[in-house]
Amino acid sequence: MGIEIERKFLVAGDGWRGATEGPPVPIRQGYLAAPGAAGATVRIRRAGAEAFLTVKGPGGLVRAEFEYPIPPQDAEAMLALCTTPPLAKARWSVTHQGHLWTIDVFESPTSLAGLVLAEVEMEAADADPPLPPWLGREVTDDPAYANARLISHGRPG
Amino acid sequence: MGIEIERKFLVAGDGWRGATEGPPVPIRQGYLAAPGAAGATVRIRRAGAEAFLTVKGPGGLVRAEFEYPIPPQDAEAMLALCTTPPLAKARWSVTHQGHLWTIDVFESPTSLAGLVLAEVEMEAADADPPLPPWLGREVTDDPAYANARLISHGRPG
Repeated sequence: MGIEIERKFLVAGDGWRGATEGPPVPIRQGYLAAPGAAGATVRIRRAGAEAFLTVKGPGGLVRAEFEYPIPPQDAEAMLALCTTPPLAKARWSVTHQGHLWTIDVFESPTSLAGLVLAEVEMEAADADPPLPPWLGREVTDDPAYANARLISHGRPG
Repeated sequence: MGIEIERKFLVAGDGWRGATEGPPVPIRQGYLAAPGAAGATVRIRRAGAEAFLTVKGPGGLVRAEFEYPIPPQDAEAMLALCTTPPLAKARWSVTHQGHLWTIDVFESPTSLAGLVLAEVEMEAADADPPLPPWLGREVTDDPAYANARLISHGRPG
Protein backbone atom coordinates (compact mmCIF):
# COMPACT_ATOMS: atom_id res chain seq x y z
CA MET A 1 0.00 0.00 0.00
CA GLY A 2 1.40 3.38 -0.95
CA ILE A 3 0.22 6.90 -0.33
CA GLU A 4 1.27 9.84 -2.46
CA ILE A 5 1.08 13.25 -0.77
CA GLU A 6 1.78 15.91 -3.32
CA ARG A 7 1.13 19.58 -4.02
CA LYS A 8 1.00 20.84 -7.58
CA PHE A 9 1.41 24.37 -8.94
CA LEU A 10 1.49 26.31 -12.16
CA VAL A 11 4.90 27.86 -12.84
CA ALA A 12 5.29 31.62 -13.39
CA GLY A 13 8.37 32.48 -15.44
CA ASP A 14 11.76 30.87 -15.86
CA GLY A 15 13.25 31.64 -12.43
CA TRP A 16 13.65 27.89 -11.75
CA ARG A 17 15.89 27.26 -14.75
CA GLY A 18 19.07 28.53 -13.05
CA ALA A 19 18.63 26.06 -10.17
CA THR A 20 18.08 22.76 -11.99
CA GLU A 21 20.06 19.66 -11.04
CA GLY A 22 21.31 17.48 -13.88
CA PRO A 23 19.69 16.96 -17.27
CA PRO A 24 15.93 16.47 -17.51
CA VAL A 25 14.44 12.98 -17.55
CA PRO A 26 12.39 12.38 -20.70
CA ILE A 27 8.99 10.96 -19.75
CA ARG A 28 6.33 9.38 -21.95
CA GLN A 29 3.12 8.15 -20.40
CA GLY A 30 -0.30 6.90 -21.34
CA TYR A 31 -3.42 5.71 -19.55
CA LEU A 32 -5.30 2.41 -19.60
CA ALA A 33 -7.88 3.90 -17.23
CA ALA A 34 -8.27 7.66 -16.88
CA PRO A 35 -11.49 8.42 -15.02
CA GLY A 36 -10.35 11.87 -13.85
CA ALA A 37 -11.33 12.97 -10.37
CA ALA A 38 -13.26 9.84 -9.37
CA GLY A 39 -12.14 6.21 -9.59
CA ALA A 40 -8.71 4.76 -10.20
CA THR A 41 -6.14 5.79 -12.79
CA VAL A 42 -3.85 3.22 -14.46
CA ARG A 43 -0.72 4.75 -15.97
CA ILE A 44 2.07 3.33 -18.14
CA ARG A 45 5.24 5.43 -17.90
CA ARG A 46 8.62 5.40 -19.61
CA ALA A 47 11.09 7.54 -17.62
CA GLY A 48 14.56 7.52 -19.18
CA ALA A 49 15.68 3.88 -19.25
CA GLU A 50 13.05 2.78 -16.72
CA ALA A 51 9.37 1.92 -16.97
CA PHE A 52 6.52 1.68 -14.48
CA LEU A 53 2.93 0.52 -14.19
CA THR A 54 1.16 2.74 -11.67
CA VAL A 55 -2.32 2.62 -10.15
CA LYS A 56 -3.56 5.74 -8.38
CA GLY A 57 -6.73 6.32 -6.41
CA PRO A 58 -8.96 9.39 -6.77
CA GLY A 59 -6.99 12.65 -7.01
CA GLY A 60 -6.15 15.46 -4.60
CA LEU A 61 -3.49 16.17 -1.97
CA VAL A 62 -3.41 12.65 -0.52
CA ARG A 63 -3.77 9.79 -2.94
CA ALA A 64 -3.40 6.00 -2.89
CA GLU A 65 -0.55 4.99 -5.19
CA PHE A 66 0.83 1.60 -6.24
CA GLU A 67 3.85 1.68 -8.53
CA TYR A 68 5.61 -1.34 -10.06
CA PRO A 69 8.76 -1.33 -12.23
CA ILE A 70 8.16 -3.23 -15.47
CA PRO A 71 10.32 -4.14 -18.49
CA PRO A 72 10.52 -1.19 -20.94
CA GLN A 73 9.38 -3.42 -23.81
CA ASP A 74 6.20 -4.26 -21.84
CA ALA A 75 5.61 -0.52 -21.36
CA GLU A 76 5.97 0.18 -25.08
CA ALA A 77 3.48 -2.57 -25.94
CA MET A 78 1.00 -1.30 -23.33
CA LEU A 79 1.38 2.32 -24.49
CA ALA A 80 0.09 1.03 -27.82
CA LEU A 81 -3.03 -0.28 -26.01
CA CYS A 82 -3.82 3.16 -24.55
CA THR A 83 -6.80 4.96 -26.04
CA THR A 84 -4.91 8.23 -26.60
CA PRO A 85 -1.31 8.75 -27.84
CA PRO A 86 1.20 9.09 -25.01
CA LEU A 87 1.91 12.41 -23.36
CA ALA A 88 5.57 13.54 -23.48
CA LYS A 89 7.29 15.86 -21.05
CA ALA A 90 10.77 16.73 -19.75
CA ARG A 91 11.13 16.43 -15.98
CA TRP A 92 13.60 18.78 -14.30
CA SER A 93 14.60 18.72 -10.62
CA VAL A 94 15.16 21.68 -8.31
CA THR A 95 15.89 21.54 -4.58
CA HIS A 96 14.44 24.53 -2.71
CA GLN A 97 15.23 24.90 1.00
CA GLY A 98 15.66 21.14 1.45
CA HIS A 99 12.61 20.07 -0.56
CA LEU A 100 12.83 18.41 -3.98
CA TRP A 101 10.60 19.95 -6.64
CA THR A 102 9.98 18.33 -10.00
CA ILE A 103 9.18 20.64 -12.90
CA ASP A 104 7.45 19.10 -15.88
CA VAL A 105 7.73 20.90 -19.20
CA PHE A 106 5.10 19.41 -21.50
CA GLU A 107 6.04 18.69 -25.10
CA SER A 108 3.18 16.73 -26.63
CA PRO A 109 0.40 16.41 -27.58
CA THR A 110 0.70 19.83 -29.19
CA SER A 111 -2.32 21.04 -27.18
CA LEU A 112 -0.11 20.81 -24.06
CA ALA A 113 3.17 22.15 -25.51
CA GLY A 114 4.56 24.89 -23.29
CA LEU A 115 2.58 23.95 -20.18
CA VAL A 116 4.86 23.87 -17.11
CA LEU A 117 3.80 22.29 -13.78
CA ALA A 118 5.76 21.99 -10.53
CA GLU A 119 5.18 19.32 -7.89
CA VAL A 120 6.57 18.64 -4.45
CA GLU A 121 6.15 15.29 -2.73
CA MET A 122 5.70 15.45 1.04
CA GLU A 123 6.01 13.13 4.03
CA ALA A 124 2.79 14.39 5.60
CA ALA A 125 -0.22 16.39 4.44
CA ASP A 126 0.73 19.24 6.80
CA ALA A 127 4.46 19.30 5.90
CA ASP A 128 4.15 22.87 4.56
CA PRO A 129 7.31 23.09 2.39
CA PRO A 130 8.61 26.64 1.70
CA LEU A 131 7.25 27.76 -1.68
CA PRO A 132 9.78 28.86 -4.32
CA PRO A 133 9.22 32.38 -5.75
CA TRP A 134 8.69 31.07 -9.30
CA LEU A 135 5.48 29.21 -8.44
CA GLY A 136 2.14 30.33 -9.85
CA ARG A 137 -1.33 29.29 -8.73
CA GLU A 138 -1.75 26.03 -6.78
CA VAL A 139 -3.71 23.37 -8.73
CA THR A 140 -3.46 20.40 -6.29
CA ASP A 141 -7.24 20.09 -6.09
CA ASP A 142 -8.01 21.09 -9.66
CA PRO A 143 -8.86 17.89 -11.58
CA ALA A 144 -8.28 19.70 -14.89
CA TYR A 145 -4.53 19.57 -14.18
CA ALA A 146 -4.35 15.83 -13.54
CA ASN A 147 -2.12 14.35 -16.27
CA ALA A 148 -4.84 11.80 -17.04
CA ARG A 149 -7.22 14.68 -17.82
CA LEU A 150 -4.66 16.86 -19.61
CA ILE A 151 -3.95 14.06 -22.08
CA SER A 152 -7.60 13.77 -23.14
CA HIS A 153 -8.96 17.29 -22.52
CA GLY A 154 -5.94 19.47 -23.35
CA ARG A 155 -4.65 22.56 -21.56
CA PRO A 156 -7.25 24.22 -19.31
CA GLY A 157 -8.48 27.72 -20.01
CA MET B 1 5.45 -8.82 -23.98
CA GLY B 2 3.11 -11.73 -23.40
CA ILE B 3 0.52 -13.38 -25.54
CA GLU B 4 -2.36 -15.43 -24.16
CA ILE B 5 -3.85 -17.98 -26.53
CA GLU B 6 -6.90 -19.51 -24.93
CA ARG B 7 -10.15 -21.23 -25.86
CA LYS B 8 -13.15 -20.94 -23.56
CA PHE B 9 -16.24 -23.15 -23.30
CA LEU B 10 -19.42 -23.54 -21.34
CA VAL B 11 -19.50 -26.76 -19.29
CA ALA B 12 -22.28 -29.31 -19.71
CA GLY B 13 -22.81 -31.42 -16.61
CA ASP B 14 -20.51 -32.66 -13.86
CA GLY B 15 -18.45 -35.18 -15.83
CA TRP B 16 -15.26 -33.22 -15.05
CA ARG B 17 -15.63 -33.52 -11.28
CA GLY B 18 -14.20 -37.05 -11.11
CA ALA B 19 -10.99 -35.97 -12.85
CA THR B 20 -9.96 -32.91 -10.84
CA GLU B 21 -6.41 -32.53 -9.53
CA GLY B 22 -6.01 -31.16 -6.02
CA PRO B 23 -8.27 -28.73 -4.23
CA PRO B 24 -9.64 -25.70 -6.09
CA VAL B 25 -7.82 -22.36 -5.91
CA PRO B 26 -10.07 -19.62 -4.53
CA ILE B 27 -9.94 -16.58 -6.82
CA ARG B 28 -11.21 -13.06 -6.22
CA GLN B 29 -10.79 -10.46 -8.92
CA GLY B 30 -11.88 -6.98 -9.81
CA TYR B 31 -11.30 -4.52 -12.66
CA LEU B 32 -9.80 -1.03 -12.76
CA ALA B 33 -10.55 -0.87 -16.48
CA ALA B 34 -13.13 -3.14 -18.04
CA PRO B 35 -13.96 -1.92 -21.53
CA GLY B 36 -15.21 -5.29 -22.75
CA ALA B 37 -14.39 -6.33 -26.31
CA ALA B 38 -12.41 -3.19 -27.28
CA GLY B 39 -9.51 -1.57 -25.45
CA ALA B 40 -7.42 -2.87 -22.58
CA THR B 41 -8.58 -4.62 -19.41
CA VAL B 42 -6.80 -4.05 -16.07
CA ARG B 43 -7.42 -6.83 -13.55
CA ILE B 44 -6.52 -7.21 -9.87
CA ARG B 45 -6.54 -10.89 -8.83
CA ARG B 46 -6.11 -12.74 -5.56
CA ALA B 47 -5.44 -16.45 -6.26
CA GLY B 48 -4.88 -18.42 -3.07
CA ALA B 49 -1.89 -16.81 -1.31
CA GLU B 50 -0.76 -14.97 -4.46
CA ALA B 51 -1.83 -11.75 -6.13
CA PHE B 52 -1.41 -10.32 -9.62
CA LEU B 53 -1.91 -7.12 -11.58
CA THR B 54 -2.75 -8.05 -15.17
CA VAL B 55 -3.23 -5.97 -18.31
CA LYS B 56 -4.92 -7.65 -21.27
CA GLY B 57 -5.49 -6.38 -24.78
CA PRO B 58 -8.79 -6.71 -26.67
CA GLY B 59 -10.40 -10.15 -26.28
CA GLY B 60 -10.64 -13.25 -28.44
CA LEU B 61 -8.52 -16.35 -29.10
CA VAL B 62 -5.15 -14.52 -29.15
CA ARG B 63 -4.70 -11.71 -26.70
CA ALA B 64 -1.84 -9.51 -25.45
CA GLU B 65 -1.29 -10.20 -21.74
CA PHE B 66 1.06 -8.63 -19.18
CA GLU B 67 0.93 -10.16 -15.70
CA TYR B 68 2.90 -8.97 -12.65
CA PRO B 69 2.95 -10.57 -9.18
CA ILE B 70 2.17 -7.97 -6.51
CA PRO B 71 1.95 -8.02 -2.69
CA PRO B 72 -1.46 -9.39 -1.55
CA GLN B 73 -2.02 -6.30 0.62
CA ASP B 74 -1.62 -4.10 -2.49
CA ALA B 75 -4.21 -6.26 -4.27
CA GLU B 76 -6.71 -5.90 -1.41
CA ALA B 77 -6.30 -2.11 -1.42
CA MET B 78 -6.72 -1.95 -5.20
CA LEU B 79 -9.76 -4.26 -5.13
CA ALA B 80 -11.33 -1.55 -2.96
CA LEU B 81 -10.65 0.97 -5.79
CA CYS B 82 -12.57 -1.15 -8.34
CA THR B 83 -15.93 0.19 -9.41
CA THR B 84 -17.76 -3.10 -8.85
CA PRO B 85 -17.35 -5.60 -5.96
CA PRO B 86 -14.90 -8.41 -6.78
CA LEU B 87 -15.98 -11.54 -8.58
CA ALA B 88 -15.32 -14.80 -6.69
CA LYS B 89 -14.83 -18.23 -8.22
CA ALA B 90 -13.25 -21.60 -7.43
CA ARG B 91 -10.71 -22.74 -10.02
CA TRP B 92 -10.36 -26.49 -10.55
CA SER B 93 -7.78 -28.21 -12.76
CA VAL B 94 -8.28 -31.21 -15.04
CA THR B 95 -5.72 -32.71 -17.43
CA HIS B 96 -7.33 -34.17 -20.55
CA GLN B 97 -5.10 -36.04 -23.03
CA GLY B 98 -2.04 -34.02 -22.03
CA HIS B 99 -3.72 -30.60 -21.96
CA LEU B 100 -4.44 -28.68 -18.75
CA TRP B 101 -7.99 -27.36 -18.46
CA THR B 102 -9.06 -24.91 -15.80
CA ILE B 103 -12.68 -25.03 -14.71
CA ASP B 104 -14.05 -21.94 -12.99
CA VAL B 105 -17.13 -22.36 -10.80
CA PHE B 106 -18.49 -18.88 -10.15
CA GLU B 107 -19.68 -18.05 -6.64
CA SER B 108 -20.38 -14.32 -6.57
CA PRO B 109 -21.83 -11.87 -7.37
CA THR B 110 -25.05 -13.86 -6.94
CA SER B 111 -26.01 -13.12 -10.57
CA LEU B 112 -23.13 -15.41 -11.62
CA ALA B 113 -23.54 -18.15 -8.99
CA GLY B 114 -23.61 -21.57 -10.65
CA LEU B 115 -21.98 -20.48 -13.91
CA VAL B 116 -19.19 -22.89 -14.93
CA LEU B 117 -16.60 -22.08 -17.62
CA ALA B 118 -13.69 -24.18 -18.89
CA GLU B 119 -10.53 -22.79 -20.47
CA VAL B 120 -7.48 -24.31 -22.11
CA GLU B 121 -4.31 -22.31 -22.69
CA MET B 122 -2.43 -23.19 -25.88
CA GLU B 123 1.06 -22.75 -27.31
CA ALA B 124 -0.24 -21.75 -30.74
CA ALA B 125 -3.57 -20.63 -32.16
CA ASP B 126 -3.82 -23.82 -34.23
CA ALA B 127 -2.81 -26.23 -31.39
CA ASP B 128 -6.22 -27.98 -31.59
CA PRO B 129 -6.32 -29.71 -28.15
CA PRO B 130 -8.68 -32.72 -27.89
CA LEU B 131 -11.98 -31.53 -26.42
CA PRO B 132 -13.24 -33.28 -23.26
CA PRO B 133 -16.76 -34.77 -23.49
CA TRP B 134 -18.12 -32.52 -20.72
CA LEU B 135 -17.67 -29.31 -22.71
CA GLY B 136 -20.64 -27.29 -23.90
CA ARG B 137 -20.71 -24.49 -26.46
CA GLU B 138 -17.47 -22.64 -27.25
CA VAL B 139 -17.55 -18.97 -26.15
CA THR B 140 -13.97 -17.90 -27.00
CA ASP B 141 -15.20 -15.11 -29.27
CA ASP B 142 -18.30 -14.20 -27.26
CA PRO B 143 -17.50 -10.96 -25.37
CA ALA B 144 -20.45 -11.59 -23.03
CA TYR B 145 -18.39 -14.36 -21.36
CA ALA B 146 -15.31 -12.21 -20.68
CA ASN B 147 -14.93 -12.03 -16.88
CA ALA B 148 -14.70 -8.23 -17.13
CA ARG B 149 -18.17 -8.22 -18.74
CA LEU B 150 -19.67 -10.91 -16.51
CA ILE B 151 -18.84 -8.88 -13.40
CA SER B 152 -20.75 -5.83 -14.64
CA HIS B 153 -23.43 -7.34 -16.91
CA GLY B 154 -24.19 -10.65 -15.14
CA ARG B 155 -24.78 -14.06 -16.64
CA PRO B 156 -25.73 -13.99 -20.35
CA GLY B 157 -29.12 -15.20 -21.56
